[in-house]
This record gives sequence, C-alpha cells and structure tokens, in this order.
Amino acid sequence: METYDFIVIGAGGSGLAGAMYAARLGLKTLVLGKMSGSELPVGGVITTTDIVENYPGFKSLSGIELGKKFEEHARAYDLVEIKTEEVLEVQKIKKGFLVETKKSEYSGKTILFATGTKWKKLGVSGAKELENKGVNYCALCDGPLYKNKIVSVVGGSDSAAKDALVLAKHAKKVYIIYRSEKIHPEPVNLEKIKNSKNIEIINNTNIKEIYGKEKVEEVVLDKKYNESNILKLDAVFVVIGHEILSELAIKLGVKVNLHKEIMINHKTSETNVPGVFAAGDVTDKSFKQLITGVADACTAAYSAYEFLGKEKIES
Amino acid sequence: METYDFIVIGAGGSGLAGAMYAARLGLKTLVLGKMSGSELPVGGVITTTDIVENYPGFKSLSGIELGKKFEEHARAYDLVEIKTEEVLEVQKIKKGFLVETKKSEYSGKTILFATGTKWKKLGVSGAKELENKGVNYCALCDGPLYKNKIVSVVGGSDSAAKDALVLAKHAKKVYIIYRSEKIHPEPVNLEKIKNSKNIEIINNTNIKEIYGKEKVEEVVLDKKYNESNILKLDAVFVVIGHEILSELAIKLGVKVNLHKEIMINHKTSETNVPGVFAAGDVTDKSFKQLITGVADACTAAYSAYEFLGKEKIES
Repeated sequence: METYDFIVIGAGGSGLAGAMYAARLGLKTLVLGKMSGSELPVGGVITTTDIVENYPGFKSLSGIELGKKFEEHARAYDLVEIKTEEVLEVQKIKKGFLVETKKSEYSGKTILFATGTKWKKLGVSGAKELENKGVNYCALCDGPLYKNKIVSVVGGSDSAAKDALVLAKHAKKVYIIYRSEKIHPEPVNLEKIKNSKNIEIINNTNIKEIYGKEKVEEVVLDKKYNESNILKLDAVFVVIGHEILSELAIKLGVKVNLHKEIMINHKTSETNVPGVFAAGDVTDKSFKQLITGVADACTAAYSAYEFLGKEKIES
Repeated sequence: METYDFIVIGAGGSGLAGAMYAARLGLKTLVLGKMSGSELPVGGVITTTDIVENYPGFKSLSGIELGKKFEEHARAYDLVEIKTEEVLEVQKIKKGFLVETKKSEYSGKTILFATGTKWKKLGVSGAKELENKGVNYCALCDGPLYKNKIVSVVGGSDSAAKDALVLAKHAKKVYIIYRSEKIHPEPVNLEKIKNSKNIEIINNTNIKEIYGKEKVEEVVLDKKYNESNILKLDAVFVVIGHEILSELAIKLGVKVNLHKEIMINHKTSETNVPGVFAAGDVTDKSFKQLITGVADACTAAYSAYEFLGKEKIES
C-alpha cells in the first residue's frame, strides 16, 4: 500500500492549492478528487461559476478556467498525485490514517479534509438546464454580472436576505421569492431590506418553472403576482441551503458544529484530531469564499509539515 | 474632507485585494499606498520577489507582474481610489477615524491596517545591487528556484534554520552563515539540521561582500573557511529579522503582541478596536504568506461591511 505524507480529500480549489504548498514543503501528496455524493470535476465547485471576478489577481475568468489553473499548478509538482477516486472511509491506524476508496487503499501520515459543500438545487424545470446561464448559487461571486438587471433570490433565510442585499447594490430590481408566510433573516438585515428601494418580497410563492432560450428570461410562479404568473427577470439566485460534506470526517472523530461544519483552529487549520486538518467550505469559516478556503488549505499544508517534523523527532 | 467607508493603509497584495472585495460589497474605499519608512511601489513587498510560484492559480510569474495584477484588479472598481500618500497618523474621531497623510486628511468609517513588514537588509557591498539576482529574503518563495544549486542563509534564528531546511529540499548544498558562536533555533529544528546531509553551519563569520556580474557568484567572508575567504554560491538568503510596521496602529490603541504584531481574530480579521481590522504580515498570523494575507484582507472587507451595516441600524 502506497504511503503519503499528506492526503487531501477533495480536489476543489482549496484541496489543489493545499497540495501545491505541501509539495513545495517536500511532502509526498495525494489528492483524492471525487467525494461521495458529489459529481464535480477536478477544480471543484468553482467550475460551476460562470465568471469569477473575486479571486484576487484574476480580474475576470471563467470558473472552469480557474479550476484548470489550480489543477495545473498542483500538477506542476512531481510530489503531487491526483486521483479521481471516490473516498469511502478514513480510519485512524497506528502510523497515521488509512484511506479507502472505491478502487484502492492508501496510507497517509496526515489528512486534509477539503470536501466542501453541495448547494441544494431547485428541482424545477429549467433549473438544471439554465445553471450558469442565469441560475446561480453565489450572489457575491456572480452578483456584479447583473448590473442594472432584474434578478431574484429564492429563499427566506438570513443568507438569502444577505444575498438580496448584495444583489441590490448591482441590480435594478431584486425579488425575494419565498415559499412561506414571512422571510426570517436577522433583524438587522430585515431592516435593511425594508429600507431598500429596489428589493421586493413575494411571499407564499414558489417558482414552478424557469424559462429562457439561451439564458434565463422569465419564471413561472405558482401564484399570481401583479396579476400574472409570469415574472420577467435575468437571474435566479437559489439560496435554499447547502449540505456540508463532512460525513467522512465525523466518522473519524473530527468535531463539527451544529451545522456539521468542521471546527478548525482558524490560525492553523487544525481540527481536534492530531494530524487532521480542514479547509474551505466544509469548515466553520465565517466568510466562505474561494480565496479564504485556498489560504486555509495552504496553512494546513504548512501545519502538516510542522506536525510531521515534530512527529519524526519524538518517535 | 472626503469620507470613505473603508480606508486601507498599505497598498501591497493584501491591501489591494481587501479593497477589491470591499468595492464588490459596495463600500467606498481608499487605499493609501506609502507607509512611513517603506519605499515599495503599489503591489508591496511581493514586487521584490523575482519569481512567484506559490500564489495559488499562477504557476509562475514575476513579483512585479503579480503586484500589477492586484493593482489592476482593485482599479477595476470605481469605488476604489488608490493614493500613494504617506500616512502620518490615524486618530479616532466621533464618527470613525481621521487619517492624516503628508498631503491631506481623510475620514474613514472603518480602517484596515495592511502595512506589512520591512525585511532587515544586509548592509554590505553587492547586497542591494544583486537583490532578486541571488540575494533573497524568502526561502519558501524563492527556494525552488535553486534546485541543485549552492545557497546560503545568513542568520542564526529559528526562522533562519527553518529556511535552511526548506532550502535543503531543493539545493545541493546550504551554508548557514552566522556571526556568533552558535545558531539558536528550536531544538526540533536544530536536530533536523544536524541530521541533514547538505546543510553546513559556518559560525563566527560575517559576509563582507557579495559579488557577481549579473547574478550572485560568490561571497567574501571575514574569516577563512576551508582555507579561503571566498565562498562560491548561487544565492544568499538574508534572514536577520524584519521590522513589523505597526506603529500607526499602536498609536491608535490597537493591541499588539511582544513582536509588535497586531493581534487579530483569525476568523474575522478584527482587532480589539471596533471598526479597525488588520491583515497580512503586520498581524500575528502564524503562516505569513501572500495568499494568507490576501485572504485575511478579503475577510476584513466583509467584516467591515457587516460592521457598517450594524452601525447604521444601531445609530
């Protein structure tokens, strides 16, 4: 069985950047790229973003391009191997950890969980077909693309409200479409939404269909609004929550919070289990963005390097 | 007097990235780019690095190029202004902060200190002339450029030792040149240096001169080593400490640690003073790299945005 200094679970931007840093520190590194339940390519969730304009250093590029850049950067180091194998289990063994995939088994002296999250999708006609063509999941990432356009946010949570506020800075008009009686953000955000001139809330309403030839043009509502079931708009931001992909870590004994986010030391990216680190959207980071996940993964690589150095001397 | 939502002091990679994020959040932002005591251009300390290969997403580019990219990214937003004015003082006023520069005064509702550090330079002939041509300050950044070459580290601290260990993974030979009796790293690192096959320590010795036509070729020592005062090598890494540029923050009442590093909440980039944030090399970050400073500055922008939202409602 092949042994690695550092096994990264998750081949998104964070995982790939962590692998690159680990290789620079001389660690033999394996990136395992297909998480149970996720169907993203190497590059991760950023590849589902149309245009990325908030990764510092790149003014504007496609999510697919950026994902490729992270992959190429990691592959530039001989010490990095990337395998698109689904990880089934991670177990503690005497010297480190045993990682079992659908295909094989690997032993790792340290582990980085960079498994991310899965956005909950809207299960209506057009949602999948128009993904990245007006159907979006990240207001901060994609909001600036809709300057002076009409957009909507689907959801009633604090995240949905905050996304509406972000969008209101760019768009001409923001509709919040919510299935129940009343949206439920933090009072401070509700207040701001009430004071906003270009946000309108449509309660007790669901989107039944999203329609557009090449990009989103209109949605069909299950209830009349302004005497019509049709609402013309340029984008639908789906903010109905996401699933934290921390199951493997939890099984290993890694501590998570109520949202199942892995709790890390924000200075070192360490978890409660020695030799196990976490970075990116799977953690309890307060500001979850590609740039912050990437940085935490680089920090994790350095912490793993330090951890291995100390282990070596002590044993 | 012009008022800004977010004033960034320091126009390095971190400051510029924070400004870009702030603008995306709708904050009117000013970047003040020349710190007292520093003579770096916009782009900051990274512009002094020859080739950058560890900023995730860019496999390899010059420090000057990368600095330019950060600047262009920030300038792409109308809400960002960059002024290369030296900041003399930051004071608390009733509504936020007053920032006094050599030329003018500005009022900021929030402040980000991204003032960085200054490497202590080696004051010998050739050191300045061959900077970035073999005279380097960052082993992690520039180490991989010296694969199978002969390099030296000047210094005896734990940082110097760690840099020698990083360099030993790439270089054929690493000399540690130290002015006193004995280098004084952490025991774990001293142990590793002793076990290393390609690190050699030259104690009680100073470099008198660095020589090379286009790049570093040799150094002149003040004491004979192997019967010669001349040591042939390809690089000199100067690791004799750095000065933390936190004076302005300290005067404002921001808490620092014994090294004068600004103490931040690593999850939010907040300092102890409400409305004041810090990011990058000026902070008590454990892993100081461009990528981690940039990420913390983006987090600071978001924390400032949240802070301003709450202030608005409360007042």
